[in-house]
Amino acid sequence: MRVIFHVDEEEKWPLALGNVKNMVAYCRQNASAYEIEVVANSQAVLTYRESGHLEAEMQALSQQGVKFAACQNALRALGISQEELSGFVHPVPAGVVELAQKQAQGFAYIKP
Amino acid sequence: MRVIFHVDEEEKWPLALGNVKNMVAYCRQNASAYEIEVVANSQAVLTYRESGHLEAEMQALSQQGVKFAACQNALRALGISQEELSGFVHPVPAGVVELAQKQAQGFAYIKP
Amino acid sequence: MRVIFHVDEEEKWPLALGNVKNMVAYCRQNASAYEIEVVANSQAVLTYRESGHLEAEMQALSQQGVKFAACQNALRALGISQEELSGFVHPVPAGVVELAQKQAQGFAYIKP
Repeated sequence: MRVIFHVDEEEKWPLALGNVKNMVAYCRQNASAYEIEVVANSQAVLTYRESGHLEAEMQALSQQGVKFAACQNALRALGISQEELSGFVHPVPAGVVELAQKQAQGFAYIKP
Repeated sequence: MRVIFHVDEEEKWPLALGNVKNMVAYCRQNASAYEIEVVANSQAVLTYRESGHLEAEMQALSQQGVKFAACQNALRALGISQEELSGFVHPVPAGVVELAQKQAQGFAYIKP
Repeated sequence: MRVIFHVDEEEKWPLALGNVKNMVAYCRQNASAYEIEVVANSQAVLTYRESGHLEAEMQALSQQGVKFAACQNALRALGISQEELSGFVHPVPAGVVELAQKQAQGFAYIKP
């Protein structure tokens, strides 16, 4: 199971994280290996700064191997520095490029 | 033509069904074989209970070979039993897993 | 880099064009060849008639090789003739068919 999730609106994070949790749970129950990455661009990168309940949920998923990527174009446009982001978030030069490259490598694309 | 459509908001159903109708019409006009599945998760599974004009549209598409899948995680979260769903709807353990597996089998993904 | 962007709501155009600009900029900086097509269906085809700042942005991207496709089913449903569209827009019989065929050819799908 190799999947990228795309999030570009802040209000879609709860749905997206629920989707990821369902996928991780399924894979663990069925002993399936998984590579799951969530790519946030546009306004959705703002959520990576928050230190609320979503950060705790992301952190838990990160500890189960889920990757969280932030579009650097969006960070720059919104004036967010790398230091403001949760420690488990890794920057990528352009969110859309990451989404295209992963699909070219065989990842499925899901937009919650 | 092998395609999965993803619907996770109730208000997107009319657009999604219009998309599916256009695709079926094109395939029939061009004598192209097709495998089309609509995967509903989150709030979108609520529409599978209704017995309004959308159900008639879905039923007609179902008779033309279109499959309609409902995420069991969403059904459980919303307290909907299998018996409440239209007869042509088939449950899948997790909508996002279905979306990923179909893409791995070569289906295109479209999110209306 | 081979990508199709899908736009079916008028208000998503600014985000979508920003995504495309980021992708083109990345490819030019990294000397990567690219094939990028934006497919508009449903209400999103309305924007192809406007002669405002979005048309100028689209025109500039078109000159950098980005293709802009309009779903003919949507044009017909909205009563828009080919003559009303910007010159760089090319019609396709069905937007969803275009999206599926490009993915079958190896294009990545992104829905802003």
